[in-house]
Parts: sequence; structure tokens; C-alpha cells
Amino acid sequence: MKVSDKFEKVSELARRRGFFWPSYEIYGGVGGFICWGPLGALLKRRIEDKFRDIFLRRLNFYEVETPIIAPERVFKASGHIDNFKEPMVECSACKRKFRADHLLQEIAGISSQETDKMKLEDIGRSLNEHGVKCPECGGLLSEPKYFLTMFQTNIGPYSDNIGYGRPEAAQGIFTEFKRLYEQVRERLPIGFAQIGHALRNEISPRQGPIRLREFTIIDLEFFFDPENPKCHLLDEVADEKLRLILAENRLKGDEKPVELTVREIVNKGYVIVEWLAFFMALAKRLVTSLGIPEDKQHFIEKYPWERAHYSAQGFDQEVYLERWGWVEVAGFNYRTDYDLSGHMRESGVDMRVFKQSDKETVREEIKINPVIKNIKEDFADKAPEVIRMLQGINPEAILEALDKQGFFDLNGLKITPRHIEAVRVRVKEKGKRFIPHVIEPSFGSDRLAYAALEYAYTVKEDRVILKLPRDIAPIQLAVLPLVSRDGLPEKAKEVYSLLLDEGFYVEYDESGYIGKRYARFDEIGVPLCITIDYQTLRDDTVTIRDRDTWRQVRTKIAEMPPLLNKYFRFKINFEDLGTPHR
Amino acid sequence: MKVSDKFEKVSELARRRGFFWPSYEIYGGVGGFICWGPLGALLKRRIEDKFRDIFLRRLNFYEVETPIIAPERVFKASGHIDNFKEPMVECSACKRKFRADHLLQEIAGISSQETDKMKLEDIGRSLNEHGVKCPECGGLLSEPKYFLTMFQTNIGPYSDNIGYGRPEAAQGIFTEFKRLYEQVRERLPIGFAQIGHALRNEISPRQGPIRLREFTIIDLEFFFDPENPKCHLLDEVADEKLRLILAENRLKGDEKPVELTVREIVNKGYVIVEWLAFFMALAKRLVTSLGIPEDKQHFIEKYPWERAHYSAQGFDQEVYLERWGWVEVAGFNYRTDYDLSGHMRESGVDMRVFKQSDKETVREEIKINPVIKNIKEDFADKAPEVIRMLQGINPEAILEALDKQGFFDLNGLKITPRHIEAVRVRVKEKGKRFIPHVIEPSFGSDRLAYAALEYAYTVKEDRVILKLPRDIAPIQLAVLPLVSRDGLPEKAKEVYSLLLDEGFYVEYDESGYIGKRYARFDEIGVPLCITIDYQTLRDDTVTIRDRDTWRQVRTKIAEMPPLLNKYFRFKINFEDLGTPHR
Repeated sequence: MKVSDKFEKVSELARRRGFFWPSYEIYGGVGGFICWGPLGALLKRRIEDKFRDIFLRRLNFYEVETPIIAPERVFKASGHIDNFKEPMVECSACKRKFRADHLLQEIAGISSQETDKMKLEDIGRSLNEHGVKCPECGGLLSEPKYFLTMFQTNIGPYSDNIGYGRPEAAQGIFTEFKRLYEQVRERLPIGFAQIGHALRNEISPRQGPIRLREFTIIDLEFFFDPENPKCHLLDEVADEKLRLILAENRLKGDEKPVELTVREIVNKGYVIVEWLAFFMALAKRLVTSLGIPEDKQHFIEKYPWERAHYSAQGFDQEVYLERWGWVEVAGFNYRTDYDLSGHMRESGVDMRVFKQSDKETVREEIKINPVIKNIKEDFADKAPEVIRMLQGINPEAILEALDKQGFFDLNGLKITPRHIEAVRVRVKEKGKRFIPHVIEPSFGSDRLAYAALEYAYTVKEDRVILKLPRDIAPIQLAVLPLVSRDGLPEKAKEVYSLLLDEGFYVEYDESGYIGKRYARFDEIGVPLCITIDYQTLRDDTVTIRDRDTWRQVRTKIAEMPPLLNKYFRFKINFEDLGTPHR
Repeated sequence: MKVSDKFEKVSELARRRGFFWPSYEIYGGVGGFICWGPLGALLKRRIEDKFRDIFLRRLNFYEVETPIIAPERVFKASGHIDNFKEPMVECSACKRKFRADHLLQEIAGISSQETDKMKLEDIGRSLNEHGVKCPECGGLLSEPKYFLTMFQTNIGPYSDNIGYGRPEAAQGIFTEFKRLYEQVRERLPIGFAQIGHALRNEISPRQGPIRLREFTIIDLEFFFDPENPKCHLLDEVADEKLRLILAENRLKGDEKPVELTVREIVNKGYVIVEWLAFFMALAKRLVTSLGIPEDKQHFIEKYPWERAHYSAQGFDQEVYLERWGWVEVAGFNYRTDYDLSGHMRESGVDMRVFKQSDKETVREEIKINPVIKNIKEDFADKAPEVIRMLQGINPEAILEALDKQGFFDLNGLKITPRHIEAVRVRVKEKGKRFIPHVIEPSFGSDRLAYAALEYAYTVKEDRVILKLPRDIAPIQLAVLPLVSRDGLPEKAKEVYSLLLDEGFYVEYDESGYIGKRYARFDEIGVPLCITIDYQTLRDDTVTIRDRDTWRQVRTKIAEMPPLLNKYFRFKINFEDLGTPHR
């Protein structure tokens, strides 16, 4: 038998016991889609819940849930239509299509840092120079073209009503920002997160759960006043040490991480905005709590040409995985006002917020007054709606459109100069209007779950033990009668019911020799096995067995629920669950 | 001001305070998409978690998470390509498109029972007879055509690789059934559920959160042996009373519900399978626990022509909503072996399970042996894969294809008679192979959340109180210093931190007069407000105020966490939280 790497071992276990596997196998499989099974879906959700706890509940930030399908204008505004594309070549013989930059990396040995900087012509030239042929059939490759890596569809029955599957959950927060901001009573700074499926139509996905066409994204959009960028929570993480690979060192060819405290990172100016370092520190705690050692994580600062189109500074949080090396599990980007400005431009809706100050400012402003008579004449029933909508639109946008094309498009209605009157007004305000800036921590839930599995996968005495941290283990407890006779199953079922009623995730199992059952539960990471034996029938005590050490303690059944609650919240250790057994 | 109905009132509150609102308003809105905001997303998730608790954790069933995008063959197999379509007409003048059956209902006054039975020609004839014109411009309507109401896209860069957004989460379970069944160690009966976004490309959606193009579906697929259809858990719900509108009564024109216990429903044979009644009883409990009174719920049995294409018997669970009358929140269908058979036919993969029995049966079976030499010659590197794949395929399917078209399509590879040898073998088995049957309870999460909001919406002394059941209220606790001076905010923040550390969803608020703050939290359904006053500084007690009765009790801060935990799990009542105050 050939030696398999850890990815193969984890995948085999994941497929057999129900963590994850490739989707649609009965139809030959479709690249880039995976399923999370009975155990995997629970594990993944527990990780997402952990994010919710650390980044939302404790910070008084909020989760939202917006659609996956969005109309084309959203992605025009966000820059995705222009930027979310990859270079692709087609084989003239077998007609297969490939990522052109990947071919350069794999066949010509050019680094991704290099290919990331290349224009389409550069890629074409380089493919020619290196004589790159089709890796499947050796055929000639076409000139590279850009392929838009979003899933396209139509919304409703009209073919010109184009929609896309969202490649990130962030835009669902930006398009709704005005409402959200009102709903939280105009609080800044404030964070809104979204956890949900995202879609990226990769040209030729590989790498199992690492590069997917459909995956779960965890996007947190944190809005703040750029004139007030201080992080008031910095003290809470100031001493946390982060391993950082800085762009300035990378340029010198040094890719070794430096270890710095958050305080040092901020003081030395390695981050443009303090909050960036704050969220990186929380992210390190989150990833560490999934069982990934500190020295198997780091943050790598991206070069300008490696960053997404909206980013002014960016770090990737990477985790070391046996097969692929350092793999991104999260990105931290300073998105500035890029997105809100884009939506303001595209929609004409004012996305600015108002900030009070003691100083009174006087400014000239253009105000648009509706000419009600003409609007009624031209729009009849829709007049009230037109008048209402006009109020929400940035006057500059209307005047610019009138100037350029003679009309303003108000969601399909043509507003011409006869419908409005522009007046200059002097506005006295104690304060000013501005577009909030955004810091975005963004996690890949599937990758986090895979990484947790890989680090939990250990072997002891030739058996697999899945040492998942106890608070993300999918099944918390197994209840096992020592043998399936003499009233032990009945007693065990009572204990099972008791624990179910207390809200635990419990399995009951009486099939086969007890050692084999222990092994079965060790393999799926159940932290504790509770065994009902003959002594239980006499004194209502059970044994509790620790997955990792195989040690056992003995405890009164009635005392178990509060003890277990504390154990799973890390308030007590295994030894505190009872008295040592044997 | 005009009188607004409850939907308008709930929607106004929902928009203003962050429960839900129409998506993409800055782009003029896109019909059929909504956003769940900071409070709404939490409410909706708490409802989904309740489903998880009642239908999964307690029954030892499992949740899975599979992709939203699926290849075309999945929906060929499931019958959706043929059946998931609606009649559509286009206006020849303004080019707008409409659901033809909806026009008949709204303009010609024909009932949906009637239009549901009509063929395309019938609809066209009826539109003509009733002289139905375009409701927007009065233009002539085209002949009706069918419109496939799935969102279509391409997977990857190949235009012939068509995919669809799933209209139900169920198929993700059926396509993976073989793996799932192995992962649970071949246990029957067994249930697998999926909670996730589903997509239905409605022609002209309306009705806010009720008819959506993108929504959250909760599909539970319960697999059982049709020869052993008894529900062993029936006793747990036998005395639960359900209000049923039976198809036999509906045929007689009687749409009044009859109230029957689950035991009676089963004994009188009103359900084909006991499990159908079992899940309906659990669903009644779930919906009741969301605050919807029993007399505002019922189950209506569907006529054959109203049922989905896969259903042999179906009930809709309906809830009464003020604007729309009785609205479906869940469907219960006996899907038989329709889906697994479809996927077995389309994929050629054997979806049967094996059942042991004492009786030995001998049967003749056709077995396919690979002709290894020829396979190696023709498929080179892929030979081992071909040999492995051939083993998973139903021999009948291979022989049928060879017979019909001369080859069998093995995921793109042509298997011809020279690659295989068919032999007849006598198989002795203690048992038999069969396709499990399926009962499906399926909920609409958005509708459940909306219904909970509508029933929670009450007015007391001219103020809105959102009387959400305490276990689904998004924010559990508010911590309020009586005034924002004299050290009360500092003390209140200590209490806030304590409750955060205990895992509660808490808000802190010190802005404005205390009565106004109470009103603000009543309006979003926070069950308890905790007030820190001058007495707190002396004796470390706080007042706890009940949202619904406005009564108050006084409690020691240190005693609060365990009491609150019990309160939110319905183990104690408000009065048990402390001693009466004032």
C-alpha cells in the first residue's frame, strides 16, 4: 500500500464517517463542490458559532442575512464586473480550458508573485516563450482571455435582467448600509457580519475543500469614522503576539515571520488602522482555539498587486497544511470607502453619515425641488413615489446626469429638467457628512473546518483519535452499556434521555465489544464516553472516559449535568468530573 | 392617515428596528428578495435552532450541508426539469410578463383549485373567454407558455455545462444518500435534514416575505423501509390534537377542519404512513412554541392535482395571517421512492439498501465482469478507475444502454460490449434489496419568522410590545442604569460584562429617560430589562422587569445567572426570578 499524506487520511476518514466528501459522486462528481455530512455540518456550525461569539455577541456587533443572488448593478458598483476575472486559455485540440497563470506556475515554474503582476499580453508572451502546451493532450493553446469568475443567471423571465451569485457576502451589507446604520441608531464604529454561501465560478478547481466553487464565507464589515480611527478595545489584545510576514521584508526576499505584540505592531505603524491589528488578534485566538498551534499560523502582508481591487492594506492569515503548505484561512483588508462610494455613484443614493460637532459649519449645498405639476403630468400614479425617491438621491448625481445625457434614470423612469428645480441653499450644520471607512476580516468556514480536522487527526496505538477541542466536537457524549444484557441497556437509555433533556449532543450505542465502541467514538472525536456497568445498577454511578488520555473517572449520574456543562465551557478539567477509576 | 393592516405595521417595525425589509432598495428594489437584519437574522436563526432541537438532536437525526448549485442531471432525475414550471403570458404591447394562472384567479375570478388542474391549452382558452388583457397597459396577451422557474447558470467555463440553483434542499440529500446511509452504519429509519437557501425564479413575486425568489428552506428527508412503516415513537404524540382539513371533506365543499388526535388520525387511516402524522404533530408543537395559537393553525390535505410531482400524499400546515388568510408554512409529503429511483435511473448507480432476514432467498442476478485486458488497452491510466466505477453501477442499466445505443456512458467514457462480460449468477442471500421510502416535512424559515412576528405584535397603552416567546427573542436582556451619572453606568457595565460572560445576548443602554428605554426594548421583544439603581450601589441587587406585564422583581446580582438560565429554558417563571418590587 502506498503511503498516503495527511490530506488523504483525513479525507478517507471524512468520507467514511460523515465529515465531508466531493458532491455529486453518483454523477461522476463536479469539481469545486463538497458536502458536509452529519458530523461535518455540526463541526462547521460550531466553528461558525464560535466566530459569532467572539466577533459579534461579545463586541455587540450584529449578523445579517441577505440574498446570494444580486442584480448586475451591485457588482458594477463593487468593481467585481471589472476585476473579478481570471486569465484563461483553451486548447485548440481537446478544447479543454485552463487557468493561464496556473499553467505558468506549474509548467514554467514562475512564482505566483510574478504571475499576479502580469497583464494578459505578458501571460500570453510568457506561455509562448516557455512553450507551454495543453497539459492534457499536448495541443496548442489559444491566446489568454479573461473569464468572469462569477456565476451568471437571469432574475425573473426577462433575459436582460442579469444577476450573479455573490462571490462575497460583503456586498449584501454595503447595499443595505443606510438601513442598517439607522437600525443601530447611527452608531459608529459598528460591525455587521454575514455567514453564508458564496459562489466563485473557478475555471478548473482542485484541492478538495481548499478551492471551492461554492463555499461558506464569514464576512465582517466594520465601519468607522476615518477621522477617529483609534481602537478603544486595543488594550484587550495589546499583549497578544502575532507572527507577521511584512511586505517590506518580503521585498528583501525575507519571508520569515517576525513575532510582535499587537501594541508593537500598532506603535511601529505596520498597520494603517489600529482595528486591523485588533481583528487579527481576535482571529489568532479563534484559530488557536480550533486546535491549530501558534507556530502553524501567521499573517502575511500582501503586496499592492496581490491585493483585491478594493483594498488599501491587506493581510492573509495562513495556516500550515501538510499537502499544500501555507494556506489562507482568512483575509484582513482595509477597504476604505471603496464600496460605499461605488454604490453611492452607481445608485445615486447618498451613503454618507452625519457627524455632530461643536463647531458650526456653513456650506452651500444644491437642493433638488420636485416640480410637482410636471411630475404628476408625466408619471400619473407614480408621482408620489417619484417625489419620494428623488429626495433620497444625491443632487450632484442628478445634475451630472442631466448635464451629460439630458435625463436622470430613476430606476427606469426618465427624469428631465422639466421635473426638477435645482436651488442653491446655505446650510448651517453643527457637524459634517462623510462616508465611513471599512475594515474587513473575512474567513473561509470550510477551510477552517478542514484545518481543525487535519490538526485533530492523530494516531495512538495504531488507532485514529480525532482530538478536536471539546467545544467544537460535533458529538459531545456517547452513552454505552458495558454489555447489552442484564438491564444495562435500559439503565443506559435512562442516562441517555437525561443528557438529551439537558441539551447535549449524545449518541447511544450498545453494538459490539466495548473497546471497539470506544475506538469508534475516539475516531470521530467524541470527548467523553459514559459507560453504564454492573456497579451502576447498585449505586447509580457511571464511568466517564477521556478521549485523549483514555483515563476514567467515576461519577454519580445526578451530578453529571452541571459538571458536564462546566467541562464543555472549559470551566473545569476532566479530573474534576469524578473520582479516578481503577 | 389611512388605517394600515397588520402586515404594514409589522413591516414598518421590521424595517425601522432591523428585522427584515426588501433587498436592494438603493437600486429600486428587486422583487422576491428580502434581507434579515440585526434582530431578524437572530430571530430566524433561533427558530431554525428550535427545529434542530426538536426534529434532529432529540430524534438522533442529522443535519447536512450540500451545495445550492447542482448540475442539470440532478434535476432531470428529480423531475424538476419536466415539472417545475409555471404558465406565463407576455403582453404584446408593453412586453411585461405575468403568471397566466394568477391572472385567471385575479381577473377572471377562477379559483386556484381550478387553475391548478388546467393544462396550458385550457389556460389559453380561459384567458380568451374571459377577455383577460394586460393588467398594466390593457394590451393583448400572448398564448401561455411554460417558464422553468429555476435559476439557470453555467458551471465553469463550458457553455454546455448547465447548472441550476436548487429549488429545494432535498435533492442534496437524495444524491448523497448512499454515502449518508453508510455513514450512519446502515440505520433505518433515519432522517437527514438541511437548512439553507433555496432559489425559485418566480415570474412576478409579490407578498413581501411570503413569496420569495430566495428563501431559507428546512427540508427533512426521513427514510424508512416500506415493509416496516410503523412509527415506534407514535406514543409520544398520540394524544396531540391536530386540526385537519381532509381532502374527502373538501371534495364535498366542506373546508372546515376536524380536530383529531394523532391516534385517531392513524387509526382511521387518514394518513398513508404513520410517520406523516408523527411529524405533523411535532410541527404543530414547533409552530405553537413560536407563539402561534392552536386555532390559527391547521393541516390541509392536498388534492392529487395540487400535490408536487413526487408526492403520493401531502398536507400543508397553514397559519392564519391577517392580510393573506391561510398561508402555508410547512408541507408534509410522502415522496415514496420517487427521488431515489429517479437518481438510480439517471446515474445508473444502485440506490437500494440491503435488509437482512432469517429467510434465505435465492435469486438469479446478472453480474458484470470487467474485461480487464480490453479496458487497459482502451483507457490506459484510467483503467483502474473504470473498473472501480463499473462495480457501483446497476448491471441492468449497463445492459439496457448497450442494447439501445451500443455503448454505456460511464461519466463521459464509452463502455462497449468488448469491455464487459455479463454473467448470470445465483445469489443466495438472507435478505433482500429495496429502495427506502421517504416522508418529508419541509418548512419555510422566512414564513415562520414572519408569522412569529405578526403574532407577537401587540399594542398596550398605545405602545408596541413584541411578545415573542422568550426562547426566540433575539436580544434576551437589556442592562440599564437608571440614570447616567453617580456611578450607575459603571456598575451597570459590570453587570453587562457578567451577563456577556455567561453567554447571554445582552444590550447596554444609558441614553435617555428610563421609561423611553423600556419602551424601546419592549418594541423589539427583549423579555427582561435589568435596571441598576441607587439601591444597587448599596446592596448589589437589581430590578428585573417583565416585558409583558411590566412587573418587577428584585434580585441579587450574583444569583442572577443561574436563575436567568432556568428562566430562558422555561424551567422557572418570571415570579421566581426575585422578590416583588414596589
